[in-house]
Amino acid sequence: MSKEKVNYVDIDWKPDKSLKVPLYSQIVRYFSRKIEKGDWISGQFIPPQRKLAEIFDVNRSTVWEAMQELAALGLTEGNYGKGTMIVNDTWEMLIAGSTLNWQSYIDKGNFHANVDYVRQINQLEYEKDIIRLGTGEPSPKLAPKEAISRILKEEMDGSPELNYPPPLGLPELRQALCQYLEREKDIRVQPSNILITSGALQALQLISVCIVPPNSTAFIESPSYIKSLNVFQSAGTVLESIPMDDEGMMPWIISRHFDVGRTILYTIPTFQNPTGNVMSPERRDEILRYCRSNRIPIIEDDVMGDLWMDERPPKPIKANDDRGSVIYIGSCSKSFSPGLRIGWVVGPESVIQRLADIKMQQDYGTSTLPQEIFAHCLRTGVYEEHLTGMRRELKRRRDLALKVLQEHFADIARWNTPSGSYYIWLQLKGNVSIRRIFEAALAEKILINPGEMYDIRENYSLRISYVYEDDEVLERSLIRLSEIIKSVMKAT
Amino acid sequence: MSKEKVNYVDIDWKPDKSLKVPLYSQIVRYFSRKIEKGDWISGQFIPPQRKLAEIFDVNRSTVWEAMQELAALGLTEGNYGKGTMIVNDTWEMLIAGSTLNWQSYIDKGNFHANVDYVRQINQLEYEKDIIRLGTGEPSPKLAPKEAISRILKEEMDGSPELNYPPPLGLPELRQALCQYLEREKDIRVQPSNILITSGALQALQLISVCIVPPNSTAFIESPSYIKSLNVFQSAGTVLESIPMDDEGMMPWIISRHFDVGRTILYTIPTFQNPTGNVMSPERRDEILRYCRSNRIPIIEDDVMGDLWMDERPPKPIKANDDRGSVIYIGSCSKSFSPGLRIGWVVGPESVIQRLADIKMQQDYGTSTLPQEIFAHCLRTGVYEEHLTGMRRELKRRRDLALKVLQEHFADIARWNTPSGSYYIWLQLKGNVSIRRIFEAALAEKILINPGEMYDIRENYSLRISYVYEDDEVLERSLIRLSEIIKSVMKAT
Repeated sequence: MSKEKVNYVDIDWKPDKSLKVPLYSQIVRYFSRKIEKGDWISGQFIPPQRKLAEIFDVNRSTVWEAMQELAALGLTEGNYGKGTMIVNDTWEMLIAGSTLNWQSYIDKGNFHANVDYVRQINQLEYEKDIIRLGTGEPSPKLAPKEAISRILKEEMDGSPELNYPPPLGLPELRQALCQYLEREKDIRVQPSNILITSGALQALQLISVCIVPPNSTAFIESPSYIKSLNVFQSAGTVLESIPMDDEGMMPWIISRHFDVGRTILYTIPTFQNPTGNVMSPERRDEILRYCRSNRIPIIEDDVMGDLWMDERPPKPIKANDDRGSVIYIGSCSKSFSPGLRIGWVVGPESVIQRLADIKMQQDYGTSTLPQEIFAHCLRTGVYEEHLTGMRRELKRRRDLALKVLQEHFADIARWNTPSGSYYIWLQLKGNVSIRRIFEAALAEKILINPGEMYDIRENYSLRISYVYEDDEVLERSLIRLSEIIKSVMKAT
Repeated sequence: MSKEKVNYVDIDWKPDKSLKVPLYSQIVRYFSRKIEKGDWISGQFIPPQRKLAEIFDVNRSTVWEAMQELAALGLTEGNYGKGTMIVNDTWEMLIAGSTLNWQSYIDKGNFHANVDYVRQINQLEYEKDIIRLGTGEPSPKLAPKEAISRILKEEMDGSPELNYPPPLGLPELRQALCQYLEREKDIRVQPSNILITSGALQALQLISVCIVPPNSTAFIESPSYIKSLNVFQSAGTVLESIPMDDEGMMPWIISRHFDVGRTILYTIPTFQNPTGNVMSPERRDEILRYCRSNRIPIIEDDVMGDLWMDERPPKPIKANDDRGSVIYIGSCSKSFSPGLRIGWVVGPESVIQRLADIKMQQDYGTSTLPQEIFAHCLRTGVYEEHLTGMRRELKRRRDLALKVLQEHFADIARWNTPSGSYYIWLQLKGNVSIRRIFEAALAEKILINPGEMYDIRENYSLRISYVYEDDEVLERSLIRLSEIIKSVMKAT
């Protein structure tokens, strides 16, 4: 945590003015308790006094008094240039017993904390009134609420599955997915080739911990969404970027010096995230041939594949994989509902069984009810029907966003015209400080996703999503963003 | 996988007798395709020909012919004393290109495959007609099907949450849990102290990867359910057993030579799994005091706590934890429905935030609908009402099991009288081969959980569950088990 910017404590309390206890001592008591219980720990900061006065709705002098007291108690330490910091050590000496220093446990844990921007964005996305201009989440207004309410009320057979799901997931869902994969993707597999996961992310996480050996290399597109996830990095895999041309990732650029058995390739051929690129059918074949002859397993991520607007994209690489070289990942999070937390991995039985074995050790399977609901939606055409509406809406929103860009960004950026999915990849002209744009936008409650979240190299792009905010907010905040960018550019 | 017993391939296909293609060549084609696609891999075995003839419903001579052909093609290799083995290498040489050796990826992965018995039991539990005499799953008949169907049909407000859940879980569920924890457990916390997980298992898994440093020691009860999970072991934590007396784990036996900051204590004070022990209130205090003064964080597992039959058990250790020394884990899997996959971790905010951060990296949160359902059940008393019925039923089943034990096991075993939860801990008299009992029982479709799954040392016990099978099956299979044990004892 020390590497991050200022880590302020969360305050969700106010002094009670109806009590006889002085306000300042209520505040002291609140702070002491939070620190004593270990809720707040050494290294965290208390917000500025001005801010505290606002939060507590008290005079600044009351806050000042409370802060003096806390410092006198040894619970806080003054200005490090960042404000008032909580000091646990002093406190530990003060109280007779001892308290765990959870922080030392946390720091030593295996998992890397999520990278700075990503973590910040994950938290900010849940803040009130924030405008989410880069998010990977669909607008709640696009969610199939009515369809699912109707299914729950009328169409479930009254006998929900409430016991543990089988390790691979409910058979009815895997069966429905087989039919869907054959019909929509030309992928022919058996239910035993499918594992149901908690979204595509869990599929990636399982692959990273139990298929990819430590110190492996993963070839990825440059830029790639996977970079922002930290999932392969946490497992000790080194990411190596492979540039794309118009047809997609260029396999001939892959260095010949890789270690067979310690190398994988991760690709998002359809509506690549964040660039929106669609890999050509020829390139798909080329990648498959290249990886096969070099014995590199392919992880194909197709979570956006159903969200085409203009025309159906080429078949997944998996469709031509007759030798089990590809692990294919899908999900209903982007195309239907992220809250269901339903994803799937398709691969050779031996791999699927292993992933299932590890999933059983992690969470004993995916919740049954969402599996039943999604199986029902696949079987009865509710999913397909939802997609039809979704595609129309995506197209409308995309066209609106493109219009605004044309009017306000033409002199400061280049961008693609996405043919599916959520994003426009906005490449700013000139080496402008993205961090300053991010912060200036945030000051106006506009949250953007900087391109460097997705890249190993420096990058002057933004991922813009046209799928979360409503038309009016989208348009207004895009225009405001263009002004912010221009003013940062000017100041540089 | 090589360490395991024979790893047979799964066959879910039959030759089509209406086709003109000879049956033996249909079989050869089926096998070749399965091997070619990587579904079956080097080191796996083909079932005996007798068994194949049965599965395919063909003559043994047809199977023999097919097996000869497969061997001639270099796809299989004959008798290693275990049967016919699939050989990938030969096949890889045969087909011109190359295929990935997924097995090498699988073997090198970070995660240990689940231990032998555990994996076998996990798979066997989903087999048809198996009698589950040791399982940790409640009978589907005890599931609150009617209540949940009614809630889905009538009581959900028609606006299900279908977007990503917030990192800690839905606020309404965390709020409902705060009230439940205060009312039922005397634990006073805020929603910000609670993280919703996919069952208690995920809580443990998150703790193991991000709180406990590698090469730590976890003090556990001897025996303990945690041993069977592999969750701490996978993260590089060494388990050290601490014996129990009648009042529970004996903290004074803990060696003084532990490394502060690399030591935790995991305990199930209420209805300890597998022994059913209930730790006395005095011992709970003693453990808390001991761990506090030695700076050992406590992981308190209370998933069975609500399932008391005779009288309310003592308060959790967490109830007296005013300094954030305890991470408390609960779940609705055992007391309500495992299929919902809802668990919770309660701890200091700093720890909870870190766990949530890692959970976000693993699965982006727990499915929303099950969270909404369980929150509703807690709020409206449906959970409490279900517990009342469940307690009555547990008591009835326990008494039945004890009666059968009294009649048939008195001369071969000792056991406890559980005052809550699912299990009887059956300690066999004399050093009998548990493996032979396990296999003899399995031959009659009776699946038992050997005590050594839960123990670091050798152990001649069985965990018997009275909660899965119906009365008649429970009684009959227990009697049969007593006969099997006696005959194995006799043969020893």
